[in-house]
Amino acid sequence: MEDYWGTDRMVAFSDGVLAIAITLLILEISVPESAFDDLWRGIADQWPAYLAYVTSFLTIGGIWVAHHAIFRRLQYANRELMVINLLLLMVVAFLPFPTKLMAEAIHNKDAARAAAIFYGGTLLVISLLLSLLWGAVARDRRVLNPGVTEKEINAIALAATPNIGFYIAVIALAIFAPRIAVFGYLVIAIVALLRVRGDRAAGPTTTTA
Amino acid sequence: MEDYWGTDRMVAFSDGVLAIAITLLILEISVPESAFDDLWRGIADQWPAYLAYVTSFLTIGGIWVAHHAIFRRLQYANRELMVINLLLLMVVAFLPFPTKLMAEAIHNKDAARAAAIFYGGTLLVISLLLSLLWGAVARDRRVLNPGVTEKEINAIALAATPNIGFYIAVIALAIFAPRIAVFGYLVIAIVALLRVRGDRAAGPTTTTA
Amino acid sequence: MEDYWGTDRMVAFSDGVLAIAITLLILEISVPESAFDDLWRGIADQWPAYLAYVTSFLTIGGIWVAHHAIFRRLQYANRELMVINLLLLMVVAFLPFPTKLMAEAIHNKDAARAAAIFYGGTLLVISLLLSLLWGAVARDRRVLNPGVTEKEINAIALAATPNIGFYIAVIALAIFAPRIAVFGYLVIAIVALLRVRGDRAAGPTTTTA
Amino acid sequence: MEDYWGTDRMVAFSDGVLAIAITLLILEISVPESAFDDLWRGIADQWPAYLAYVTSFLTIGGIWVAHHAIFRRLQYANRELMVINLLLLMVVAFLPFPTKLMAEAIHNKDAARAAAIFYGGTLLVISLLLSLLWGAVARDRRVLNPGVTEKEINAIALAATPNIGFYIAVIALAIFAPRIAVFGYLVIAIVALLRVRGDRAAGPTTTTA
Repeated sequence: MEDYWGTDRMVAFSDGVLAIAITLLILEISVPESAFDDLWRGIADQWPAYLAYVTSFLTIGGIWVAHHAIFRRLQYANRELMVINLLLLMVVAFLPFPTKLMAEAIHNKDAARAAAIFYGGTLLVISLLLSLLWGAVARDRRVLNPGVTEKEINAIALAATPNIGFYIAVIALAIFAPRIAVFGYLVIAIVALLRVRGDRAAGPTTTTA
Repeated sequence: MEDYWGTDRMVAFSDGVLAIAITLLILEISVPESAFDDLWRGIADQWPAYLAYVTSFLTIGGIWVAHHAIFRRLQYANRELMVINLLLLMVVAFLPFPTKLMAEAIHNKDAARAAAIFYGGTLLVISLLLSLLWGAVARDRRVLNPGVTEKEINAIALAATPNIGFYIAVIALAIFAPRIAVFGYLVIAIVALLRVRGDRAAGPTTTTA
Repeated sequence: MEDYWGTDRMVAFSDGVLAIAITLLILEISVPESAFDDLWRGIADQWPAYLAYVTSFLTIGGIWVAHHAIFRRLQYANRELMVINLLLLMVVAFLPFPTKLMAEAIHNKDAARAAAIFYGGTLLVISLLLSLLWGAVARDRRVLNPGVTEKEINAIALAATPNIGFYIAVIALAIFAPRIAVFGYLVIAIVALLRVRGDRAAGPTTTTA
Repeated sequence: MEDYWGTDRMVAFSDGVLAIAITLLILEISVPESAFDDLWRGIADQWPAYLAYVTSFLTIGGIWVAHHAIFRRLQYANRELMVINLLLLMVVAFLPFPTKLMAEAIHNKDAARAAAIFYGGTLLVISLLLSLLWGAVARDRRVLNPGVTEKEINAIALAATPNIGFYIAVIALAIFAPRIAVFGYLVIAIVALLRVRGDRAAGPTTTTA
């Protein structure tokens, strides 16, 4: 019997970890004091760090939206969901490390390749865990809110699929052109945010503008 | 249809990011061990770091109040609000970096100019994103809570405007007098906090003191 | 009219800042790699860091309890409460800095004196701000929940007073015996936690153990 | 009378501290720039840091689940629970420090022994505090939610016991084989997560998959 949990504290804890991981990203950026004589140039030279910051910030933002879309449809979590969610948070909280590596390695061609593949691999694992999370929901529909339709279940499952393909493609690209791949990850994050679907129709209020 | 979100988790996530960004500011302050022989002087020498800390703390505090004033009037968020809010959080979470630069650069005149302009530019972008956020609300009034009046909508839109002008003025000042500009940012933050308006009238309890 | 706020998001934001400030304290503790040949000794040598960690952790824990005791009695916040609460959070979020200084300075007598006074001064300012916060409540009782009695108002006002006296006494002690004063701050934190009063009577369930 | 607290803000504060402690773990991992010429090897060389990261992440995840299981059964907290919970959070927030030590010390046999014992000792103290927390509940059953049965109380008390034994066993192992002990802590964390029990039966919805 006692094999289910309410989702309130899981959502609060997940929001906490995602909010902290997204905010810690900035701690890795700094301008060395030696660059203070020409600080504008010193600031500009950090562009790989800004690129990595924006990419990881928007990626985690998209993960948060996807996580939100899944959990607002659940009334319970089973053990499998609890464990997969914890693994998902573990890999998202790991992301500041490959983010920093990618920012630091961009000026060294061999290191840039390794860092871009490592970064993409981390994002690929996150995408796979999000798919697994929804797969676990689909296997035990007792966890769902009563109103969730078969159509919604399939729509969410499909929404996760393209990202997995995109990440594999950009990781392959990183082998030959690591610096272009870095922009590829940014494009995936932006496209994912533009593709997100709201979770409810607007209320009865009519448009006035 | 499914183009709207509830705002509960968006508010929780935003509060998390703002609370973390405001608290991380302290991590950048330290006294070098070489200053331990005269620690009072070592502590006093860090005044630019304290000034930058207080300025950024009160500025983020004011952003939090303005964010609160906007979101408590929303019952839904549309895609545009979701994306603008994420960009807003991204720039606020970026603020510890220009804060640190401004604290470190204050003793070098050229670097102080660059750092003060860079810091002000970040605050200007934040103000513009707050205006954009409210503009997106004004364009799709289905997202608003039923009770919100036209008068309130205009009042909030107007409340954001002066800050944009003030930041442009202080950034211009920073070109000639960067150190004075740093105090200017602090004054803007204090004035913004003193100008904030509560979000409801007091209840039926009568004043007894 | 619009001069009051609901307290829900203020409490959530304050909890966030307090939880982060209390958790960041650990980041300052580390054992230098040169001490790895005799790591037990290296770990033991960090005792001032542990002492400072425990003192600041329990102190912030006590601040959190006192903050809780105040805010659960409020149904609104006015502008004064909003500003004082933000200043309070600003000084609590500052605490990791004097904590680190006190841990590092303990082996240098002159530096230890300065660091212990600076640390105590920060705690004194926090106590004064907590008193100010409650004073602002007492001046505008429209913000209180209906059920709060005059007796409770005075009890909370009195509860804050001894800490102010204790901090002044230990700061004075720090001038002559800084290392003893460090333990004094710990004792104040423990006593404050043991003196806290619950916020409600137990429910109708009877004791069975 | 006033000797009890509601648990809402305690749960929010605890979730905050646990989420932050679990997310800060990543800040300690980095690859030295000297390893950028062969970055794949540099990344691989950090395996002790990944092992320590995963172990501490899953351990804190298990603590969070256990904490959840306790607090969802409480309607009040008494002073003892308040203090024990704060001590528990203090030791969990301390965990990033022994985690870092264990990752750094693994290549030095003597240091690895000290670090593995110190890490295990911290986890043992956490387990004991969790037991104490539940013991305090069992001593004052007025704090429990009305529906909690004697059977549940005993089940929770028993659930905590094996971990204490496991930690003592692995700490003893660490004296002779510190590197194997590190994997032992990971195994305990995984087993604890697989053993957790849900907190409610599934709702009336029938299984459809």
